[in-house]
Amino acid sequence: MSDQPRVEIYTKEDCPYCDKAKDLFDSKGVEYEEYNMTGDEELFEEMVERAGGRKTAPEVFVDDELIGGWDDTSKLDETGELDEKLGLVTDGGDEIVEHRPLVIAGTGIAGLTAAVYAGRANNDPLVIEGDEPGGQLTLTTDVANYPGFPEGIGGPELVNKMKEQARQFGADLQNGVIESVDDSTRPFRVELTNGNVYTADAVIAASGASARTLGVPGEDELMGYGLSTCATCDGAFFRGEDMLVVGGGDAAMEEATFLTKFADTVYIAHRREEFRAEDYWVDRVHEKVEDGEIEIMKNTELLEVHGSQEEGVDYVTLVENDKGHPTDRLEDPETNEFEFDVGAVFLAIGHTPNTEYLEDTGVEMDDDGYLVTQGGDGGGQTETAVPGIFGAGDVVDYHYQQAVTAAGMGSKAALDADEYLEDVERAESGEAEAAAADD
Amino acid sequence: MSDQPRVEIYTKEDCPYCDKAKDLFDSKGVEYEEYNMTGDEELFEEMVERAGGRKTAPEVFVDDELIGGWDDTSKLDETGELDEKLGLVTDGGDEIVEHRPLVIAGTGIAGLTAAVYAGRANNDPLVIEGDEPGGQLTLTTDVANYPGFPEGIGGPELVNKMKEQARQFGADLQNGVIESVDDSTRPFRVELTNGNVYTADAVIAASGASARTLGVPGEDELMGYGLSTCATCDGAFFRGEDMLVVGGGDAAMEEATFLTKFADTVYIAHRREEFRAEDYWVDRVHEKVEDGEIEIMKNTELLEVHGSQEEGVDYVTLVENDKGHPTDRLEDPETNEFEFDVGAVFLAIGHTPNTEYLEDTGVEMDDDGYLVTQGGDGGGQTETAVPGIFGAGDVVDYHYQQAVTAAGMGSKAALDADEYLEDVERAESGEAEAAAADD
Repeated sequence: MSDQPRVEIYTKEDCPYCDKAKDLFDSKGVEYEEYNMTGDEELFEEMVERAGGRKTAPEVFVDDELIGGWDDTSKLDETGELDEKLGLVTDGGDEIVEHRPLVIAGTGIAGLTAAVYAGRANNDPLVIEGDEPGGQLTLTTDVANYPGFPEGIGGPELVNKMKEQARQFGADLQNGVIESVDDSTRPFRVELTNGNVYTADAVIAASGASARTLGVPGEDELMGYGLSTCATCDGAFFRGEDMLVVGGGDAAMEEATFLTKFADTVYIAHRREEFRAEDYWVDRVHEKVEDGEIEIMKNTELLEVHGSQEEGVDYVTLVENDKGHPTDRLEDPETNEFEFDVGAVFLAIGHTPNTEYLEDTGVEMDDDGYLVTQGGDGGGQTETAVPGIFGAGDVVDYHYQQAVTAAGMGSKAALDADEYLEDVERAESGEAEAAAADD
Repeated sequence: MSDQPRVEIYTKEDCPYCDKAKDLFDSKGVEYEEYNMTGDEELFEEMVERAGGRKTAPEVFVDDELIGGWDDTSKLDETGELDEKLGLVTDGGDEIVEHRPLVIAGTGIAGLTAAVYAGRANNDPLVIEGDEPGGQLTLTTDVANYPGFPEGIGGPELVNKMKEQARQFGADLQNGVIESVDDSTRPFRVELTNGNVYTADAVIAASGASARTLGVPGEDELMGYGLSTCATCDGAFFRGEDMLVVGGGDAAMEEATFLTKFADTVYIAHRREEFRAEDYWVDRVHEKVEDGEIEIMKNTELLEVHGSQEEGVDYVTLVENDKGHPTDRLEDPETNEFEFDVGAVFLAIGHTPNTEYLEDTGVEMDDDGYLVTQGGDGGGQTETAVPGIFGAGDVVDYHYQQAVTAAGMGSKAALDADEYLEDVERAESGEAEAAAADD
């Protein structure tokens, strides 16, 4: 690898997306300089200046050119442009097609548990990391309810333990994003965005779900400039500011509690009267309310984010109506629209399942894009409408969405896939025998 | 507690039922003398003599009277006779009725995970240990496929971690066995075999499944005298003997592999051609076959066990037929019946769900006694046919039966129960408001 361009990454501690960026370059064998900004105000100012005002970690530069944060870097990688910039592109030519019995999409808890089980079942699983390696749990600082860890465990640590366990049983984890699965042929044809192609007898879709955004004015422009979907990544950049968390589930409660470490006051805007979060988190938030660190704004929604990429978030427009869901009641005279000063906004309003790569297959999805699996009480619970394609974790489960439920389903998917693969093998050897008998 | 009788327990290391016996007396606050027989041949001989020839650990004595092993001790406890012998009986009188929002039956992986989640949800769960505290995992020496422990973890250790975690979030674990649940009233009425009675707004049945026996001649007489359902408990007592493992699933493979440490040769008798076990275990067994430590007897079933309580197992009668399931083909001239010398027999032929206490309720069960739950892909997956009674783990799952699938289901049951309890609470406060409005 001659003339490798200069790669620089601004990072901070406890920043999962920073780890993802570093992992990506590590996996390519590309060296980089890391600037750890934790506790270094000057370095932070330098980054903000070089990144044109963006206040989010990581920021990646290649030969002094701003690539951007993890999302930008990952997108550029998907199209192959990042490899071009890094001088890694091999001369065009024939696509590489490799056969694997089993491809697993995703390295969140569901995908990794499936990998552990599939490895033990000798199914030689190829596990494609996807654009959020490690999945949502990597964004959680402390997992207290995963059974087996009475002291709690950090999300990234739990994910790393499972990666190690999967590798130990022979799983092959690779960076990459699946572009499409072709189910019109057997074996399936699995194309990655980097151009690699695999054929696979079975596929486990454990591609999880990604943070949802609201689609309100100012959102696109200010994402990464004071607006964020990851409190653990970006909270520390807005020390001393008032912060707004939007949402009412576990994630919103957890993020709000976490942000009290940095914020002047954390405000939670939730569109209904009651939180959806489990009592544990609601209690933690109420403790912080009593301490004066959090204020709850019920029946309140975000209408617009104001600010600029240079100055960050300036203020937001909110609406409130005691009946709940105020944006559905904008004409109601009792709906109160008002401006509110905050220096940062964190969205924790749920997730959208990552199922685009399955859209041209016969796999059934519900209206929100979640995969429909067989369920029931015997074997084959994780089967989709396409025999040989299985679903596990948050790409299926729109209700419970716990680490341990994802793990349970990942295990089931691997066991279901193993039965399917044994049938395939038996059919093939039967065909071979039949062919031999014909001789 | 005056004049406590003298309690003696013969134990050995790595014997989960020994731990259960000690836990039982600990929970009663009863002191006992423990004789650890590990590596002490003389002590072992003493026990066999005192226990009338039984070669199984633990053996419990109260004032020199043989109580027996864990099963006997536990049964005596259920009827209240053990407390009588221990002088713990309080003068008859009124039953104690205590109300709890949620009672969880069972402290296996499913029950404990439910307890962690229910504790966090402020549902103040009372968890009744049942007659196999810790469940089946306590019989497993090394759990390698529970995600999060790349080095593997001992079954009892994992269970203890989960107990600690459940207690931390407020779960109340109590020794006892549920006799019946009365679903004709609300709250439910939950009766224990020791006479305690609780009322509960919701019940999670996570009572697991227990080792199945064959019902062949010699089985009842020799159980505990060379015939066993727990290799980790009793394997070491038959050092140097030939041993027979009956079964073809994961448990049979694991027990056979474990027993090679002690046996001259381990024989596996399986009624079909192919094992049901996962490839990992089949591979381990085949390695031992190549090493000459295990021999596999396919299409073979156990017809009778011969021996005496004094001398232990002498030999067994087996039947073999290449078509499989030979006991169904006893009239077939190709069925071969033969005698076979072994010194110990271990049954690993599956489990029966523990659902007797629900038999008079409206909870639906299948022909094998497994609870039927709602399933599907949204909330309420663990609901039984009786609103307020939920099922989780091996008492429901007759197919996957993994620690991690039981954990996933335990979590779901607690979340389902929490939603149900919130509805109950809302209804009650609604009634209260309505009553107040009537004033």
